[in-house]
Amino acid sequence: MTAVHNEEQVSRSDAQEPAGAETPPLVDFETHPDRYRHWGLDIDGDVATVTLQVDERGGLVEGYELKSNSYDLGVDIELYDVVQRLRFEHPEVKAVVMTGGLDRMFCAGANIRMLAQSSHAWKVNFCKFTNETRNGIEDATEHSGQTWIAALNGTAAGGGYELALACDDIILIDDGSSTVSLPEVPLLGVLPGTGGLTRVVDKRHVRKDRADMFATKSEGYRGDAALRWGLIDATFPKREWDEQIGARAAAAAGRSQRTGTQGVELRPLDRTFEGDTIAYPYVTAAIDRSSRRVDITVEGPSGAPPEDAVGVLAQGVEYWPLATTRALDDLVLHLRTNEQDLGTWVFRTQGHTDLVIAYDSQLRGLAGDWFVHEVSLFFKRVLKRLDVTSRSLISVIEPGSCFAGILLELALASDRQYMLEGVYEDVDPDATPASIALTESNDGTFPMGNGLSRLGSRFYGRDEELAAARGTIGERLDARAADQVGLVTMALDDIDFEDELRIVLEERASLSPDALTGMEANHRFVGPETVETKIFGRLTAWQNWIFNRPNASGPDGALRRFGTGQRGSYDYRRV
Amino acid sequence: MTAVHNEEQVSRSDAQEPAGAETPPLVDFETHPDRYRHWGLDIDGDVATVTLQVDERGGLVEGYELKSNSYDLGVDIELYDVVQRLRFEHPEVKAVVMTGGLDRMFCAGANIRMLAQSSHAWKVNFCKFTNETRNGIEDATEHSGQTWIAALNGTAAGGGYELALACDDIILIDDGSSTVSLPEVPLLGVLPGTGGLTRVVDKRHVRKDRADMFATKSEGYRGDAALRWGLIDATFPKREWDEQIGARAAAAAGRSQRTGTQGVELRPLDRTFEGDTIAYPYVTAAIDRSSRRVDITVEGPSGAPPEDAVGVLAQGVEYWPLATTRALDDLVLHLRTNEQDLGTWVFRTQGHTDLVIAYDSQLRGLAGDWFVHEVSLFFKRVLKRLDVTSRSLISVIEPGSCFAGILLELALASDRQYMLEGVYEDVDPDATPASIALTESNDGTFPMGNGLSRLGSRFYGRDEELAAARGTIGERLDARAADQVGLVTMALDDIDFEDELRIVLEERASLSPDALTGMEANHRFVGPETVETKIFGRLTAWQNWIFNRPNASGPDGALRRFGTGQRGSYDYRRV
Repeated sequence: MTAVHNEEQVSRSDAQEPAGAETPPLVDFETHPDRYRHWGLDIDGDVATVTLQVDERGGLVEGYELKSNSYDLGVDIELYDVVQRLRFEHPEVKAVVMTGGLDRMFCAGANIRMLAQSSHAWKVNFCKFTNETRNGIEDATEHSGQTWIAALNGTAAGGGYELALACDDIILIDDGSSTVSLPEVPLLGVLPGTGGLTRVVDKRHVRKDRADMFATKSEGYRGDAALRWGLIDATFPKREWDEQIGARAAAAAGRSQRTGTQGVELRPLDRTFEGDTIAYPYVTAAIDRSSRRVDITVEGPSGAPPEDAVGVLAQGVEYWPLATTRALDDLVLHLRTNEQDLGTWVFRTQGHTDLVIAYDSQLRGLAGDWFVHEVSLFFKRVLKRLDVTSRSLISVIEPGSCFAGILLELALASDRQYMLEGVYEDVDPDATPASIALTESNDGTFPMGNGLSRLGSRFYGRDEELAAARGTIGERLDARAADQVGLVTMALDDIDFEDELRIVLEERASLSPDALTGMEANHRFVGPETVETKIFGRLTAWQNWIFNRPNASGPDGALRRFGTGQRGSYDYRRV
Repeated sequence: MTAVHNEEQVSRSDAQEPAGAETPPLVDFETHPDRYRHWGLDIDGDVATVTLQVDERGGLVEGYELKSNSYDLGVDIELYDVVQRLRFEHPEVKAVVMTGGLDRMFCAGANIRMLAQSSHAWKVNFCKFTNETRNGIEDATEHSGQTWIAALNGTAAGGGYELALACDDIILIDDGSSTVSLPEVPLLGVLPGTGGLTRVVDKRHVRKDRADMFATKSEGYRGDAALRWGLIDATFPKREWDEQIGARAAAAAGRSQRTGTQGVELRPLDRTFEGDTIAYPYVTAAIDRSSRRVDITVEGPSGAPPEDAVGVLAQGVEYWPLATTRALDDLVLHLRTNEQDLGTWVFRTQGHTDLVIAYDSQLRGLAGDWFVHEVSLFFKRVLKRLDVTSRSLISVIEPGSCFAGILLELALASDRQYMLEGVYEDVDPDATPASIALTESNDGTFPMGNGLSRLGSRFYGRDEELAAARGTIGERLDARAADQVGLVTMALDDIDFEDELRIVLEERASLSPDALTGMEANHRFVGPETVETKIFGRLTAWQNWIFNRPNASGPDGALRRFGTGQRGSYDYRRV
């Protein structure tokens, strides 16, 4: 992972922004175990041990030291890489023990000086990525048969405990001093930002009044009390530690349904930046800075899928669905972090619908194969990233596109879908008009955070319309039919299409980015809520509010004063 | 309703606060139809018509005119009074038609100049109260057999349309110009703040992409388009208007199960302010400003309940449960709006548990009586106000208290419950130790916004503990038993109790009020989410964030520039 300082100095109009904040670096989300500075990865049979031992001087940005195993975005990028590689490169691993390499301190959470010096946008984006990584850990446990176990060999404070909360099993060492704690509210005047409050009450079912005591008690609780309240699952003294952790890991591995022997190496992405164009195999992004927009084109496969699971595995990272998913994942992370000005992302596809459908049905047909299953799960997670991305997403469906099945999910994840009826008469009057196609994949393979498919969310509360849409699975729908069944926002012929789209994009780019972010976050998740949607909706929104308040981020706020020996100076009025 | 300017000048440390903002007035939530300046109330048989005709010069605060039927808190206080009186004073009313008294403009929503000049806290509190009033309208429709119908005789913009969204039936006049719209995002850079986004997708099931178009199209949609998308339920031209509205109101009234003939007059509250003490019959609040705390004591009934429904009705507003509920309602609103510094509310009760239980079982036994039913529903709504109140709530259970059934709900709504084990030896060694008692009322009569009882929320995901608690219904539990079954946070004897409580209250008062607000909002609603919890969680949190952003509230933000002919000047970076 490299951190090159962005040459374009970002203007800081927010009164709340720390004056001396570092210019955010250009962040690269690609890394490799050879370059890890903060995590150790050790595999022994079907159990992997990942060890957090943060290089204090390895911060992504200058201005802070990562003491006490505290983390910044760079540490988390490595963790994300660990999670991904374990899933793809190590089919044999069925349990993952996460522990720490320091004495008596597992992890002190997010680095406070880093938070204090960061811009609002940096803090928010940092929290989003770390939340996604923790959700990914839960996803590996639930869906990949890789159960994560938190072996807390020392205190897990704040984000350190939140990391543990993402694991299926939390064991805290009983050494008379180590605790679990969420000291953010009492010490920093902010919330635990990676799901702590939500997971304590909604996942671990800790009683509200106890959760209240816990989240206001900066020193936290030691083993016995933490166990009694359900904050951890077990506590053992040092002499029993290795044996007990080993036994629990072995038990988890024994329960795993995970299969496969030969992994798929996640080789470095084939990625080029040329001017304002970012290109990967199958994915290209063209940035239009003056319009604050990026046009993202996803290419369909160039040939038929391999015949069977053996053939798929042989293709490895070149398997079209995986290559495309990896590219989209990297692109989403890059644009979110490094290109805040680009408020609108426009998705197009290009290719042969029949080939997309062939791959789409292979993903379902071979779902029992560990690798194919992992590819589907990864695509699901990338789609979820889109759902929580604070950018306006617009899909444009034109001749030559291939929005079917898995690629149609990109359109369904978008805030709007514009489809050309017929062809561009002055460009290619002989083109075949665009069509879209639902497949079974759109009906539950890639659930959103709310547990519903994007199709189910689209027709939430309108069962007849949902049934009618489902009834078209397998059919090619032209613009009129797609509009009829409610799968596109607007179907227009070429006389109106370009004008309409131009106006829509111009208008979108003129609106308040904050209001759009709030609006999209409220529209995208209808119906039921889950731990996941609560984290990205309720928790994140409150945290963002708090991050904007002088009590946290003002010159005398708790975040900025942390470590000075002075507490935050609060305006005590409740809002 | 009176608005006396608060003599205590509030310091403004927030950089975002408008420099020329008016000092918030001391707001009184009591009013009476004789004093209405903005609403007309007309009753004809079983149909009431409430007409919005805002007095432009009747703003609660100076500095703005309430043009185009726009509203401020004062207008909404009257609406709340209308809703309450229709329920209690008019058992004969089974349908309520809400319409406007201006030509071609039903309501322009919240007054923008008012918002622009208001402090952050004022805006947030204003939104909370208006949201509660709209939820109350839905509650009347669903539970009181008083169906609210929005007869939009002109454009319903922003909060005007959100008012309509709270109604069961929305009819827009078809006059070639009137529309429904949510122009907040495009025109003001904020969200529709009273549930609009949530109700459009989650209540009316409008497709996400259409909701997106609607909420970014400032001029909105006229009747036909609005009807096609599900934004309204019907549209009629002027010549059919009265007949159609009348028919729909009659139909709604015909479906009502509401009974009762003689109403109960909501006579003025018997309320005194003396120094820092606020007293009502059965409820007293003692303010301790140096501790930023208010001690609220609820007194149990002084005698047995009336024998039957006739006797209850004869007591009217003096019926203990109603008198107590009215007092609590007024007190909550007063403290929230006028006493922002008091961050901790401590609840105590005083009285005879057996009498409380007698009333408690009467409320269930006579639930078929319209008036008793209304009293229960009102108490439910006041409890819900507590759930969304941004103050720390602590219940203290001591000898002489009567936390049973309905009064135990106050404790269950609290963030923590402290119970004295035994007695205060140095105060009254012969006192009877405190006990608490669950009744059937705690098991579903007063659901929270998430649809669960407070008991069910307390033991969410812990079915055995819930069953064990339920098993104690009807029993008196002393401190040890209450602790055992998980109904109190802590049971301590008098050697430790006072010290512990003092430390807890002091610590609480020292924490960041913003972090506490965010924490409490995340802890209080476990499990399922509903339109209601989404409005107070997700939507409100995002709105509060946006209200704090320079793009909305900064000197060049959209809110402050509204009406100047200049658009907001935005920092377009997405966060």
